[in-house]
Amino acid sequence: MTDTLRADGRTPQQTRPVAIERGWSAQAEGSALISFGGTKVLCTASFTPGVPRWLTGKGTGWVTAEYSMLPRSTNERMQRESIKGRVGGRTHEISRLIGRSLRAVIDTKALGENTIVIDCDVLQADGGTRTASITGAYVALVDAIEWARERGFIAKRAQPLTDSVAAISVGIVDGVPLTDLAYVEDSRAETDMNVVVTGSGDFVEVQGTAEGAPFKRSELDALLDLALVSTTELAELQRDALAEGR
Amino acid sequence: MTDTLRADGRTPQQTRPVAIERGWSAQAEGSALISFGGTKVLCTASFTPGVPRWLTGKGTGWVTAEYSMLPRSTNERMQRESIKGRVGGRTHEISRLIGRSLRAVIDTKALGENTIVIDCDVLQADGGTRTASITGAYVALVDAIEWARERGFIAKRAQPLTDSVAAISVGIVDGVPLTDLAYVEDSRAETDMNVVVTGSGDFVEVQGTAEGAPFKRSELDALLDLALVSTTELAELQRDALAEGR
Amino acid sequence: MTDTLRADGRTPQQTRPVAIERGWSAQAEGSALISFGGTKVLCTASFTPGVPRWLTGKGTGWVTAEYSMLPRSTNERMQRESIKGRVGGRTHEISRLIGRSLRAVIDTKALGENTIVIDCDVLQADGGTRTASITGAYVALVDAIEWARERGFIAKRAQPLTDSVAAISVGIVDGVPLTDLAYVEDSRAETDMNVVVTGSGDFVEVQGTAEGAPFKRSELDALLDLALVSTTELAELQRDALAEGR
Amino acid sequence: MTDTLRADGRTPQQTRPVAIERGWSAQAEGSALISFGGTKVLCTASFTPGVPRWLTGKGTGWVTAEYSMLPRSTNERMQRESIKGRVGGRTHEISRLIGRSLRAVIDTKALGENTIVIDCDVLQADGGTRTASITGAYVALVDAIEWARERGFIAKRAQPLTDSVAAISVGIVDGVPLTDLAYVEDSRAETDMNVVVTGSGDFVEVQGTAEGAPFKRSELDALLDLALVSTTELAELQRDALAEGR
Amino acid sequence: MTDTLRADGRTPQQTRPVAIERGWSAQAEGSALISFGGTKVLCTASFTPGVPRWLTGKGTGWVTAEYSMLPRSTNERMQRESIKGRVGGRTHEISRLIGRSLRAVIDTKALGENTIVIDCDVLQADGGTRTASITGAYVALVDAIEWARERGFIAKRAQPLTDSVAAISVGIVDGVPLTDLAYVEDSRAETDMNVVVTGSGDFVEVQGTAEGAPFKRSELDALLDLALVSTTELAELQRDALAEGR
Amino acid sequence: MTDTLRADGRTPQQTRPVAIERGWSAQAEGSALISFGGTKVLCTASFTPGVPRWLTGKGTGWVTAEYSMLPRSTNERMQRESIKGRVGGRTHEISRLIGRSLRAVIDTKALGENTIVIDCDVLQADGGTRTASITGAYVALVDAIEWARERGFIAKRAQPLTDSVAAISVGIVDGVPLTDLAYVEDSRAETDMNVVVTGSGDFVEVQGTAEGAPFKRSELDALLDLALVSTTELAELQRDALAEGR
Repeated sequence: MTDTLRADGRTPQQTRPVAIERGWSAQAEGSALISFGGTKVLCTASFTPGVPRWLTGKGTGWVTAEYSMLPRSTNERMQRESIKGRVGGRTHEISRLIGRSLRAVIDTKALGENTIVIDCDVLQADGGTRTASITGAYVALVDAIEWARERGFIAKRAQPLTDSVAAISVGIVDGVPLTDLAYVEDSRAETDMNVVVTGSGDFVEVQGTAEGAPFKRSELDALLDLALVSTTELAELQRDALAEGR
Repeated sequence: MTDTLRADGRTPQQTRPVAIERGWSAQAEGSALISFGGTKVLCTASFTPGVPRWLTGKGTGWVTAEYSMLPRSTNERMQRESIKGRVGGRTHEISRLIGRSLRAVIDTKALGENTIVIDCDVLQADGGTRTASITGAYVALVDAIEWARERGFIAKRAQPLTDSVAAISVGIVDGVPLTDLAYVEDSRAETDMNVVVTGSGDFVEVQGTAEGAPFKRSELDALLDLALVSTTELAELQRDALAEGR
Repeated sequence: MTDTLRADGRTPQQTRPVAIERGWSAQAEGSALISFGGTKVLCTASFTPGVPRWLTGKGTGWVTAEYSMLPRSTNERMQRESIKGRVGGRTHEISRLIGRSLRAVIDTKALGENTIVIDCDVLQADGGTRTASITGAYVALVDAIEWARERGFIAKRAQPLTDSVAAISVGIVDGVPLTDLAYVEDSRAETDMNVVVTGSGDFVEVQGTAEGAPFKRSELDALLDLALVSTTELAELQRDALAEGR
Repeated sequence: MTDTLRADGRTPQQTRPVAIERGWSAQAEGSALISFGGTKVLCTASFTPGVPRWLTGKGTGWVTAEYSMLPRSTNERMQRESIKGRVGGRTHEISRLIGRSLRAVIDTKALGENTIVIDCDVLQADGGTRTASITGAYVALVDAIEWARERGFIAKRAQPLTDSVAAISVGIVDGVPLTDLAYVEDSRAETDMNVVVTGSGDFVEVQGTAEGAPFKRSELDALLDLALVSTTELAELQRDALAEGR
Repeated sequence: MTDTLRADGRTPQQTRPVAIERGWSAQAEGSALISFGGTKVLCTASFTPGVPRWLTGKGTGWVTAEYSMLPRSTNERMQRESIKGRVGGRTHEISRLIGRSLRAVIDTKALGENTIVIDCDVLQADGGTRTASITGAYVALVDAIEWARERGFIAKRAQPLTDSVAAISVGIVDGVPLTDLAYVEDSRAETDMNVVVTGSGDFVEVQGTAEGAPFKRSELDALLDLALVSTTELAELQRDALAEGR
Repeated sequence: MTDTLRADGRTPQQTRPVAIERGWSAQAEGSALISFGGTKVLCTASFTPGVPRWLTGKGTGWVTAEYSMLPRSTNERMQRESIKGRVGGRTHEISRLIGRSLRAVIDTKALGENTIVIDCDVLQADGGTRTASITGAYVALVDAIEWARERGFIAKRAQPLTDSVAAISVGIVDGVPLTDLAYVEDSRAETDMNVVVTGSGDFVEVQGTAEGAPFKRSELDALLDLALVSTTELAELQRDALAEGR
């Protein structure tokens, strides 16, 4: 019975309810408040003409990302990294992952010498915050590019976006492959995998980790199958959110 | 004509629409998402039994606060303080102000050896973020205390709260005293004053700064009058928010 | 009897002996060693032609301040902030207050594109270090401007100083408003207020904090009256110090 | 012709010459200087009885790792992270990867309340430093465990090691899957994958990144096949190194 | 003619006027404001019962020192190390030198499990700040030990001080060995040597540096001779200062 | 009997076996892996055209050095300074010493506007790491200068090197002056002295410290004699290493 398998009654193939509140921020050039069940991430895209010095004059743009969690987004309060005076390894790692994932669908030549900084701030965390961040960040990114095009910073005909991108966490819990792990599932998973996939179904990142026992090739294959189903659904939700007028 | 005075058509004595979304966070012991027009602050209260080492065994509790702004809460993106590796002077100053303001209405003996940390994270900024933080933090604080009382961490009869507390920014713009300054007003103000007032109408903090020319005693008096009117209204809104069931 | 009220036998309206040793430093363009009883602060003003990059070309100057306490200026030794690797909230807050207070009497256009950095280093602390810093810093500032005028960095006719500025701490102890709180008084005060006032008697900063119980409007008024009397006396002492040849 | 494919004349399936100089350090409980062609990493394992405070009394041990590059291990000198005052994202990420990889073959119960810290310091870098680190670290880890067993810190019959672990980087260059990428190959790779595999042939980590275009499922499969061949060879080299007397 | 040799008319063997204002600080257990001409250093000694954790239970005390310069002690303002967020190499080096020099005349067993922290803050710098610090610190140290003895923290008969200690900078300028280099001399010196000597005339530290050309054995010998003459004079000045009642 | 005096059977005048593996690094412009018995230091010299901004246009070059120890170069593992977030006092002090020592034999005018950074990374530590660093760094420096000359960055006829430089640690153990102290000797030494000497036999640095009791002039003289013998031998070893083809 699947209802005993997953605390919230989902089937193994079923993601939590996903909502994308596009244009949440009145300040940013692009933004989305995305939720996967109890996980809520505010994604903003900040557009600025020009690029960092090391890129100047090369005719290419720059997209980067920063991820952070509010101190009480989690069940127990965490110390702020600004107070600690240093950004932790996990934060760095996820920020870099989000940046790489978005750059995989960006033609930096077409973007021109412009910079887009994506901020993904986790307001509430219940598993899958990095994959929710990537999925929401894409929507914010699209709107920031559109904003810049309307104001002439990006040429009318330029196509900086080559595809869409979304991500999901999948894992094996009690021997069963499950998609979109909630926090309680994630902490019990034997194997945990974050998969970033384009709208065309190609892989951008595949990160599988044996939390408990090492995993077999067949398990890896089952998880990738599951991830592709979920990211196809997420790509559709992104399209729907972007279809509405801002 | 007052409608030419304030861009949003308010009278000098009128605050922006204030909304208090109590219990916004599913994780924190107390929380409120408070908005003053375009200013939105997520306030969470984290309760933990026990106190920092320097207070242990003294029979008193501890309430402290941390304030922070999301990098793109403002019109231009700011660098994260976690990336800079140090918390700026303004952030420190506001965190300390919020903490002092809340402690002014707390009987730390009645709180017992318990700690409450208030986090005020500005999701969107349009002036008055520190006073909105104090006003929202009070609501989160009340709920965290209630949460602890229900679980026996605070004695049933103990009354840790001695009063309510709310805050407003007032200032003189083009010679006219105005309440609840929006960002565009704040940046034009000759004098800027943050006033923290209890439900009983006594002062907790009065911080007046001459941004342009030094100000006269009569101007100071007019601003205090204005602040007391607004904080009386805010105290009522807090009571209303807390009157509803959680 | 007032002699039981104040440990040092002062009347409520009486400041401690104030001494201003102008030109203490042989290195700085302006300097003053100021003492309020046991509180001793070395104030230096460093003049440099040019302004920070963000001000270049705007035709205005810059005045800023840094406050610090020697580790053994206090009764118990404090850790150095250089060793901790970060400047504390209180230090930042006071540095910002001193800077704002001085800028309130500076016409930055008349100063031209020049920078003056004020350093206030507390050699010995017995209450009122921030207000002593402001009062002494003004004297150092005047001399640094004069130094620059003599060397042609500031035009002969330019009047960068629009007024003088001095500050005092006042507070309510055992229900009685007192001026110039010594450390033992400050730590017992129910309400503590730092007031920065120009030579003309207008306010630059009013910072009142309820250390114990919130305070009433009438108490606020009494403290402001007291502060104005003391700052008038301090303005006179500043004039006297500056009247002598350097 | 494969000799035009790879600058050093290797076939796609061929790793560079791998050498493991076991017991290089006279100080550490276990150590190995491992080289993959021009990549040289000094791996040391430091054994200490006891565990960090958060693990005390749980009856389990702790294995962690730190990775670092000498400033002139690379073709252009890099600034030291100690001088910058912060450890970069890439360093953190690799340190965490090495630690997770080793813990995947450790039974922390059998290790007892003991800590092993692995240091992987890159003396010379020519691609694949993180996978060389994992492969060398395993050898150092085995010796540190043996050292501790001989001195009675680990019970004679305890088996803290459940398997061996080795790692390889594979990637697609000009459409051809290649194993053990040298630096010049790595920087041209369209897809880059680090694969950590146990002696039994199960996966511990699979990290694939599209450096250029997103990659297809079939490409992913080809890379995994290649990685398994190489890690099988590496496992044998590890066995050989450990077979000799220390 | 020697008067053309040294700008202030001193002979090569003559130190600048040295003044020791013992007990300058009302807060510290021991203190001295020492001046060598334009160099002024405030030395305080802070006594606390108990020792750092790593010394607890060993029956020995601890003496350590921290050196710092006020930002405008020098001719051009330096940035504060607290603002930079790190203590510079020179500061560390001098702090360590002062600590070692004082410990050379301390019997830590006789001191008992007590800690004395010496702070040497340079108020004005004109060369020789480190050697002035050592010379002044000794006086502060003596008084802190006396303070502790009077209060019973140190046994009446214990003799923690085994000797006195003083220091001088000597150097070769234009081929002539000179004692007590002022800043203008120091910056022209070919060889610079700091020598720390006990009251009995033995060496505690000898630090000679070729600023320009390497120096000969005969030059080294001449500098040591000169240093011993000056430190003998300083030891007498220390005795005189300590002979007066506090 | 000297064999009871020194654990490794050396005579007081005898250094440990010294080996200089020139050109160890395939990446750096100059390099040497130097060992003094169990002390092993990897020295690399990185050449870059141009100088730091504060030297630009002055026609002189810049040579600087950084020293660091691998965390497990010592008998007990030390925390990495990159993890601590700050470079310790000892590290700073030694880095500065190495830089000064090398600059003493460099004619910076002849070097032209070029920068050479020396990195001395201690792979294994058994006493005398700073003096081994200086001795090995000189060899790396020579090769980096030769590398630059061959490529035309330094004029063919320019002679940036004015002499060679080597260093040794000497000390008094149980009353006997010994050269090249191993770690066990160093920790027992009453007096410890690091001496840096040119190939011509002149002093660059003399740093003597009384670890236990202050030392006499006669002891100082004996140590200097001993140091000069050893540095003469080291200078010959450097010449031999440099005589072979790279």
